[in-house]
Amino acid sequence: MPQSHRIEAALDRALGCARGGTAPPRLSAALDYAIKPGGARIRPTILVSVARACGDDTPALTDAAAAAVELIHCASLVHDDLPCFDDADMRRGKPSVHRAHSEPLAVLTGDSLIMLAFEVLARTGAAQGVDARAAQLVLALARRSGMPGGICAGQGWESEPQVDLHAYHMSKTAALFIAATEMGAIAAGHDPDAWQDLGALIGEAFQVADDLRDAVLDEGTLGKPAGQDDLHGRPNAVAQLGISGARDRLSDTLAGAIASIPSCPGEAALAEMVRQQSEAIMPVLPTRYSA
Amino acid sequence: MPQSHRIEAALDRALGCARGGTAPPRLSAALDYAIKPGGARIRPTILVSVARACGDDTPALTDAAAAAVELIHCASLVHDDLPCFDDADMRRGKPSVHRAHSEPLAVLTGDSLIMLAFEVLARTGAAQGVDARAAQLVLALARRSGMPGGICAGQGWESEPQVDLHAYHMSKTAALFIAATEMGAIAAGHDPDAWQDLGALIGEAFQVADDLRDAVLDEGTLGKPAGQDDLHGRPNAVAQLGISGARDRLSDTLAGAIASIPSCPGEAALAEMVRQQSEAIMPVLPTRYSA
Repeated sequence: MPQSHRIEAALDRALGCARGGTAPPRLSAALDYAIKPGGARIRPTILVSVARACGDDTPALTDAAAAAVELIHCASLVHDDLPCFDDADMRRGKPSVHRAHSEPLAVLTGDSLIMLAFEVLARTGAAQGVDARAAQLVLALARRSGMPGGICAGQGWESEPQVDLHAYHMSKTAALFIAATEMGAIAAGHDPDAWQDLGALIGEAFQVADDLRDAVLDEGTLGKPAGQDDLHGRPNAVAQLGISGARDRLSDTLAGAIASIPSCPGEAALAEMVRQQSEAIMPVLPTRYSA
Repeated sequence: MPQSHRIEAALDRALGCARGGTAPPRLSAALDYAIKPGGARIRPTILVSVARACGDDTPALTDAAAAAVELIHCASLVHDDLPCFDDADMRRGKPSVHRAHSEPLAVLTGDSLIMLAFEVLARTGAAQGVDARAAQLVLALARRSGMPGGICAGQGWESEPQVDLHAYHMSKTAALFIAATEMGAIAAGHDPDAWQDLGALIGEAFQVADDLRDAVLDEGTLGKPAGQDDLHGRPNAVAQLGISGARDRLSDTLAGAIASIPSCPGEAALAEMVRQQSEAIMPVLPTRYSA
């Protein structure tokens, strides 16, 4: 099965757990809407790639972990789009969840997706007889999602008068990429610590790419409102380094990510995946920004 | 240590996990504000009581489970108070989290508390060498919190034009009481299934007591806005049975809860705890409602 099909199938199974005869139908529909069709699924793709590089000896657990990290990512998008944060009308080229389904259902969709992520990990751990790995996955995902250093903390920095820039970037974007590499290793029975750098560097590259896209592309190309960083006064790499400086930083960071891959049987294939993802996230800038 | 001190200490330790030099200070403060000072802590009290009835052979895991169920409960209160739901200005006699700390921080507080609940379970499972129990706890808590039958689903029913009343009550209130009894059993290494009825019946009693309080008490006595069920057209026991009918239902349900306690070493002590909790939740009605 191609990797992308594997990830969509895992998400479908996860959403299946959240359905049932007794579920409120509108909230059920909002959960599906928040997950499908998806974006690039870059976090679960990285997770599965790391698991395969580590031998992927329990594929069902890898699938559950891939679904879990994407569920948390989608939950964060739904909540970040709310009127009290970005007040975004569009996401992935269609109306945001609160625009399409109401604000109460958007809050509950985010909450439900978070619960579902942890449920899927625990359920699969029990079914596969790998409870210890499941508990490790829960811990890694929760730490990288919550406080003091996960994506909730990252979003929380935007409510502070004084921002710790390093903590902001590490938590806002890098945290869930670190979760992806750590969880890929854990799902395959490997030590996650050796995989943190790869996640952190991919996360940093992704943040810079996002800053570049936000600064120079228009809403039609982005599929969401453009210029949000400037509008909300958020710290970003383009403001700090300029367009071409940010582009150089992006290339250097991706090279560092590839260099950081720990020695493992699937090292070469994983490096190739990171190269492919790099091309996918490298924004095609309008010609006026060419060097 | 008295049981209430044990629960507060467990919550303090959990909040300690969410702090750190790199945490955004305002979100940190909002987490503390949402948890302390608390309400009756009835769910963790039930959880610890069930664990003790089952022998409480791993007290650190019982403590983590007690903290986790209360963190999820507090998260649900913070989100339910948001302007798009109850728009409540007050909670537990002080301004609600979004009034005191802003709406963005209230959304993030709820999200962070959910993450923290699962983190605490997994972290303690690893530290105590009881990963399998920790994974079971994660599964029980996630199922009773999310979709299709947890408290998110319960809140979701309030966005439906047609409400399945049984599913609504079971998920909105009973679910987290069932989590409490199941998790108390799991933390002590017992089968949770035998403990579901106790949780469901306490939950039903609690819902009826809440409906009674909402219908007949004023805001000053409640510590939150009164008459919310009527205002929002929510289904409730008083509308269905009248004041005295609802009071009879409450007594019968509590008697059923005590009768449902499985045979175990601490059965008598647990029955006594349920009796005490019954007195605590039985509203003292204004004299005009006396039989």
